Amino acid sequence: MKTDIEIAQAADIWPIEKIADEIGLNTEEWEPYGRDKAKIKLSDQTKQHDLGKLILVTSINPTPAGEGKSTVTVGLADALASQNHKTMVALREPSLGPVMGLKGGATGGGYSQVVPMADINMHFTGDFHALTSAHNTLAALIDNSIYQGNPLNLDLRRMLWKRALDVNDRALRHVTIGLGGPTSGVPREDGFDITVASELMAILTLSKDLADMKARISRIVVGYNYDKEPVTVADLGFEGAITTLLKDAIKPNLVQTLAHTPALIHGGPFANIAQGTNSILATKSALQLADYVVTEAGFGADLGGEKFLDFKVPLLGKVPDTIVIVATVRALKMHGGEDKKNLTTPNIEALQKGLPNLGRHLNSMKRYGVPVVVAINQFTSDTTEELNLVKEYAASFDVSAYVADVWGQGGDGAQSLATGVVAATDESKDFQPLYQADDEAMTKINNIVHDIYGGRGVELSDKATKQLQTFKKYGWDKLPVIMAKTQYSLSDDAKKIGAPDNFDIHIREFIPKLGAGFLVALTGSVLTMPGLPKHPAALDIDIDNDGHIVGLN
Amino acid sequence: MKTDIEIAQAADIWPIEKIADEIGLNTEEWEPYGRDKAKIKLSDQTKQHDLGKLILVTSINPTPAGEGKSTVTVGLADALASQNHKTMVALREPSLGPVMGLKGGATGGGYSQVVPMADINMHFTGDFHALTSAHNTLAALIDNSIYQGNPLNLDLRRMLWKRALDVNDRALRHVTIGLGGPTSGVPREDGFDITVASELMAILTLSKDLADMKARISRIVVGYNYDKEPVTVADLGFEGAITTLLKDAIKPNLVQTLAHTPALIHGGPFANIAQGTNSILATKSALQLADYVVTEAGFGADLGGEKFLDFKVPLLGKVPDTIVIVATVRALKMHGGEDKKNLTTPNIEALQKGLPNLGRHLNSMKRYGVPVVVAINQFTSDTTEELNLVKEYAASFDVSAYVADVWGQGGDGAQSLATGVVAATDESKDFQPLYQADDEAMTKINNIVHDIYGGRGVELSDKATKQLQTFKKYGWDKLPVIMAKTQYSLSDDAKKIGAPDNFDIHIREFIPKLGAGFLVALTGSVLTMPGLPKHPAALDIDIDNDGHIVGLN
Repeated sequence: MKTDIEIAQAADIWPIEKIADEIGLNTEEWEPYGRDKAKIKLSDQTKQHDLGKLILVTSINPTPAGEGKSTVTVGLADALASQNHKTMVALREPSLGPVMGLKGGATGGGYSQVVPMADINMHFTGDFHALTSAHNTLAALIDNSIYQGNPLNLDLRRMLWKRALDVNDRALRHVTIGLGGPTSGVPREDGFDITVASELMAILTLSKDLADMKARISRIVVGYNYDKEPVTVADLGFEGAITTLLKDAIKPNLVQTLAHTPALIHGGPFANIAQGTNSILATKSALQLADYVVTEAGFGADLGGEKFLDFKVPLLGKVPDTIVIVATVRALKMHGGEDKKNLTTPNIEALQKGLPNLGRHLNSMKRYGVPVVVAINQFTSDTTEELNLVKEYAASFDVSAYVADVWGQGGDGAQSLATGVVAATDESKDFQPLYQADDEAMTKINNIVHDIYGGRGVELSDKATKQLQTFKKYGWDKLPVIMAKTQYSLSDDAKKIGAPDNFDIHIREFIPKLGAGFLVALTGSVLTMPGLPKHPAALDIDIDNDGHIVGLN
Repeated sequence: MKTDIEIAQAADIWPIEKIADEIGLNTEEWEPYGRDKAKIKLSDQTKQHDLGKLILVTSINPTPAGEGKSTVTVGLADALASQNHKTMVALREPSLGPVMGLKGGATGGGYSQVVPMADINMHFTGDFHALTSAHNTLAALIDNSIYQGNPLNLDLRRMLWKRALDVNDRALRHVTIGLGGPTSGVPREDGFDITVASELMAILTLSKDLADMKARISRIVVGYNYDKEPVTVADLGFEGAITTLLKDAIKPNLVQTLAHTPALIHGGPFANIAQGTNSILATKSALQLADYVVTEAGFGADLGGEKFLDFKVPLLGKVPDTIVIVATVRALKMHGGEDKKNLTTPNIEALQKGLPNLGRHLNSMKRYGVPVVVAINQFTSDTTEELNLVKEYAASFDVSAYVADVWGQGGDGAQSLATGVVAATDESKDFQPLYQADDEAMTKINNIVHDIYGGRGVELSDKATKQLQTFKKYGWDKLPVIMAKTQYSLSDDAKKIGAPDNFDIHIREFIPKLGAGFLVALTGSVLTMPGLPKHPAALDIDIDNDGHIVGLN
């Protein structure tokens, strides 16, 4: 069996001008990056027609290996394109840190991939590097302000702006900086987040143009002064320089799938401490250029799905026309209590026991008033009996489920799914937001916990309670809330698989992200800097003198 | 008077395919990055003819503002091109950290610039970001190896591989990492260098192809084990992954000057702790594509010039056909003891007193047996009497000096310089290396101190003496030596301006760079992570919604 990179390297990639040409862009509207990547310029001229139909791909609570959302997204788009629908894919950019670790790339898999796979997984068009650069430039400027006399009276014990790198480097989570004597800065505690966790990443993917991005950057709270008042980037005066560093990163990237379906891949915010979907600009551009746009939201429907519908939709100004929930037999068996080592063994009983996890997500997504479809991402170990059971279960919710073999067959494996999705997008919809913009943060959180997670209530730590009082003073109490929670459970306890009941969500702390425009509610501990495993993928990655790469999966 | 960025933004930049076409590259031999930047693919097919003539631009000891080497390099190349010589420029890439600080960009100035100026000064084609990424990926992998049981027995007190960022951030010079408990790494002292100081930067610019780069990376010594034996990247097994991250960064970048002269801009190693010139691949490619190649070496002739002639030339396989020493009246007045605030006031006496600094460099460059020419980079405050005095002084060394107004007039201001340089390249030459490859390190250092600096002797610290003994055991004692010394003086004391005599060079410590293939000899303290000034340039940089940038100079 060929590996992902072997399939990708054997691909017949079209010159990117052919793709740009096909979606109707003229030469002024895009710029090449190599022969097979491009950036779309920011311009209203790219608007070809009214917004196309939007298909949101989300999933049940995943196993650590992921349930193949990106692969289904690409395969579904290829299937739609093969049925003569003008289709585009809108995906997130992969983070390099995990590529060198365990996870491998994030460009789909098998015969449902976006290409050039190795480039997209590494430096791509430099967006993440520009973000890393902008993030650390801002950090250096802040510490320089402290060093040069601290005119803003920044409280070294209450700094919020950390540093960032696109690596998995646990040794950088907690550091002390400014050591080495009086000419080398002022000592203080600090830490590094992975670049995708940077507030600048969230901002980049939420901004509608350079001016909006600059305004958002100016609102970032970098810390508090000794009077406990927030200090922003605008107070420091660096929003112009930081925005300048992101002038190209804000432009969506154009590539193609193995089947030459145009794909916009742009931004990659986490789905726990940020909104978890690709950029507003990329999604909107795709909707202006194509009739069907397939996009995805990170982790399960409880995290990425909820954030897409409650937070991204108002900014995008477009409600999905269909929600596709990806499920796999193996993950459902895990939710039924089966050991992770045995998920490829047929086990109807475990599957039956695990189905309520799918059920919970079906209900939570149906409540938004948008048509819902299930895509069963097929693995070779799945039996017909197992696949049928999932279909029947979905039918009991009045939802159609389609088996898709996108890894093995690409778009050919998703023909019935595509037909079903097109039919669903023609159904009537009546979007019901989960909360109103001017609801209090706690109202928003309660609605999420009750209606999306199926939980009982919310418990705040003393710190979180105190923070909410302070935030009211600052006028931050009605901001949208981004829940940072484990992706493995509907609850905040990764061990509570399946469809747990009678659980409370425990909010340890809030993190204000005024530039992005939301409050992050941290439940349990959320790592914003991953580590590397004992045998990192980097050990297996190699390149020969002709540039042929192996081991990147 | 227009600023550099105003001149650059008003430029009529040709599409990069026109430049690629002009130098004879076919479509397979280059890749676009935007519409005005490209990368040249690594291929022997780019060889159009025998190597062209190589003109090395170096300078006297500079003032902190620099003496305009890049500006002269660009202006001279434009002048040569205007005289119908097929000419290319080969320069280093600017580092972003200093751009945000005080120094501004490094793409020439006035009407002698390479464009697109803002892009080149910021992210360009991503080479420095790829290096940052590769550097920190290696660091994360090393600390992960320590965390996962430290199988190579790495001595946490004797680590050599630090972390790197392309920022001016003094607070990162000395840090402690791995804090926060057992799951967040192993605590140890560490620090960050600016990316241009990374050994990977030196390696990138010295490698002749991917295989050579991988071999060099595998030889990097990351630290010592508890038996005091060196531990290399090959011991860890990560050379393949790190090389893969640099697969595109190794390709030279093609841009143009304001006058459309093709320019290869690639790599940017420091001229104190590394070789200080652009990449071997870019210089060689330019020599294969053009009849005249103008390149520069960082800092003065004592640092960049010496390193080019002693270290780069053997690897390049090409001796310069002419060496151009850039001098300015203002810097010579400073060497004559004039206060930095008064350098624009006519002062023949100070100039006369400062000329021996030029004299020392004339002698040191002439000893290589290559024709030498002086370029007087003209400033509006220079008087005719002052300019004539410099010319007469050079003539007393049998060297022609030409006044060039490259900032104000571009190539038009360097016509006589260009004619003089062409004539010089036709003179006979007899290259005399300063030392032999198999000389001991101390022999090499003594020759540099005597023949280039005009110093008396060399003093080693106890540590340096001990290191040389150890290095002999490891077989490192005959490596080329890279002197890390202040650029402001021929000695290792920045205050000894002019042409000091009877001084010793004090070597505090050696740093082995086995991947790059040299020993760095540290004299005094050399900062490998700059800081920001009280009023950083970032405060003045801004961008509007149309992408128009101000304040980047």
